[in-house]
Amino acid sequence: MKQTLLLLPGDGIGPEVVAEVRRLAGVVAPDLELQEGLVGGASYDAHGTPLTDDTLDLARKSDAVLLGAVGGPKWNGVSRDKRPEAGLLALRKGLDVFANLRPAFCFPALVSASSLKPEIVQGLDIMIVRELTGGVYFGTPRGIDEKGGLRRGYDTSIYTHPEVERVTRVAFEVARGRDGRVCSVEKSNVMETGLFWRQEVTLAHAEHGAGVELSHMYADACAMELVRAPKQFDVILAGNLFGDILSDEAAMLTGSIGMLPSASLGDEGTPGLYEPVHGSAPDIAGQGIANPCAAILSLEMALRWSLGREKAADALFAAVGSALEKGARTRDLGGELTTRQMADAIIAAL
Amino acid sequence: MKQTLLLLPGDGIGPEVVAEVRRLAGVVAPDLELQEGLVGGASYDAHGTPLTDDTLDLARKSDAVLLGAVGGPKWNGVSRDKRPEAGLLALRKGLDVFANLRPAFCFPALVSASSLKPEIVQGLDIMIVRELTGGVYFGTPRGIDEKGGLRRGYDTSIYTHPEVERVTRVAFEVARGRDGRVCSVEKSNVMETGLFWRQEVTLAHAEHGAGVELSHMYADACAMELVRAPKQFDVILAGNLFGDILSDEAAMLTGSIGMLPSASLGDEGTPGLYEPVHGSAPDIAGQGIANPCAAILSLEMALRWSLGREKAADALFAAVGSALEKGARTRDLGGELTTRQMADAIIAAL
Ligand SMILES: CC(C)[C@H](C(=O)O)[C@@H](O)C(=O)O
Ligand SMILES: CC(C)[C@H](C(=O)O)[C@@H](O)C(=O)O
Repeated sequence: MKQTLLLLPGDGIGPEVVAEVRRLAGVVAPDLELQEGLVGGASYDAHGTPLTDDTLDLARKSDAVLLGAVGGPKWNGVSRDKRPEAGLLALRKGLDVFANLRPAFCFPALVSASSLKPEIVQGLDIMIVRELTGGVYFGTPRGIDEKGGLRRGYDTSIYTHPEVERVTRVAFEVARGRDGRVCSVEKSNVMETGLFWRQEVTLAHAEHGAGVELSHMYADACAMELVRAPKQFDVILAGNLFGDILSDEAAMLTGSIGMLPSASLGDEGTPGLYEPVHGSAPDIAGQGIANPCAAILSLEMALRWSLGREKAADALFAAVGSALEKGARTRDLGGELTTRQMADAIIAAL
Repeated sequence: MKQTLLLLPGDGIGPEVVAEVRRLAGVVAPDLELQEGLVGGASYDAHGTPLTDDTLDLARKSDAVLLGAVGGPKWNGVSRDKRPEAGLLALRKGLDVFANLRPAFCFPALVSASSLKPEIVQGLDIMIVRELTGGVYFGTPRGIDEKGGLRRGYDTSIYTHPEVERVTRVAFEVARGRDGRVCSVEKSNVMETGLFWRQEVTLAHAEHGAGVELSHMYADACAMELVRAPKQFDVILAGNLFGDILSDEAAMLTGSIGMLPSASLGDEGTPGLYEPVHGSAPDIAGQGIANPCAAILSLEMALRWSLGREKAADALFAAVGSALEKGARTRDLGGELTTRQMADAIIAAL
């Protein structure tokens, strides 16, 4: 049976970068069956909802899903549950992709793009494992209402045993393929969710953590240490909210957010969801100048983590690196190449 | 009537740096009445609680309170509600100091200490206004228990109208004394508390924001932007949890966390609480090598914000800068001076 990859270009620069993913897939995995669907604002415009049941069904039946980007000012007035972002959250939840893998690495050719000193980021290679389907993002009760004459807004931060355990096991597995160190991050000094998280991670380590060194850090300290000495980290494990913030901070350390992909994984045998870290960048959408590398490296992660094609993944990763070595640069990297020319440079390097 | 400043040296390097605050106060504000009390582990050891009612009473009756630092491995085994940190939280809550002012600025002489490139941090001057007595730090229900056979940990993120309004007004006031720009930070795209926060800040701006430019940013984007281009910010306004993380990240951008003070303010006429941003640093406690500047600059903030002594504050701030210009450096800044010698250099510069 043919493997299928569902492309969801989405909004803004999404369609432009996903078009290059399509070309690259044709080169490194020509037998892969590509399908396409709508998500985010594009789906809202067509169907009045940012994710249709049909698209979610299609995603569930695929071997992997690659999303471009969602959102933009066009949908600012749309009600909360129909916004483009709601489609992304529904897709994550619907696919139950609970482990978000967000690498922060620095291509040697791009070290100078960082706002940090070269010696601080040269060789940087962190993997952030973020819980993606729980925590304060989904906890209930939540709402905005009035109580005792007082207007208030509230959410529930919550984690259960299976939720912490399964993402922790992914972090251990990821660490085993790297330097074997996991740093778990929370605010156990002020939050019960944090204390619970620390207890559960510690238990999971005793049971499933053979060969992995586990440490713990408060989220504020981690935000500091990422700036001070980011190379101390191998794998950082965090809940949904802290993971959101710290993975973005870590990504920016590399100086080239247009380069970074992400993978969101569920249970074995279920499709993973792959996305560039950057957003839909409405300011440059439609101009053909967006950097396609993050989307192309998301394909690379899909080949590696969902499609069992390590060799193709290795080749693709190497090709991106060598295109950069040869000087290929889009605008965001200080160059002149268009989206298409950047992809051409990578194809040429393959 | 004499003005009083209550010194709470606390734990670790706290007593060492507060000893220098005592000397400096004698020079710049000789008529100030200094009192002293216990907090944190020191209070726990003496009284079995990290903050006694007597000490809180004394604090309430003072014009300002200056705390050194709390915590250390010695109290790791102590129950959650008796830990040193619990004393700090109780003090904040007891004094109702709801607005935490955390400057992140770079002394010209110390630009090279940053892990960021000099051009990114030269002239950096951000003020973070963090809500300090609400949010997920204090929300209920909270706990760790079992439900339906599932172990879980949970907290409540919550803000009410008066809580957001009062801290927002402080942010506006602070901005008026600076560049007049406030960037309010939340996760309104995924949290109801965040949406509520944005609505309330927007309302407060319409009513009390004359002359202040207000913008909004998601917390993850802010964590990125602080790394990419921190000088874009003037005042950052955030809730307790995001403020905790982002202010630590911003502090570390300057490269010298041993230099940074903080002020926590309540309603007009109530005592402010002043603390260095650094912790109790148990690893170097007792050696007399800690950097006293953050504590001394906390005195500077107390003189300015609670004691109405702007001139003394200005003189103290200038003296720290000129001691640095002349090369005075403690170990953390790459120098050789002891805690006492660093304070001597500042006194000499006065
Ligand atoms: C778009 C938004 C809902 C999302 C999140 O907060 O998870 C984004 O920041 C991300 O990290 O993918
Ligand atoms: C010690 C801890 C409870 C505290 C906090 O989280 O508020 C600290 O990180 C701070 O920022 O003062």
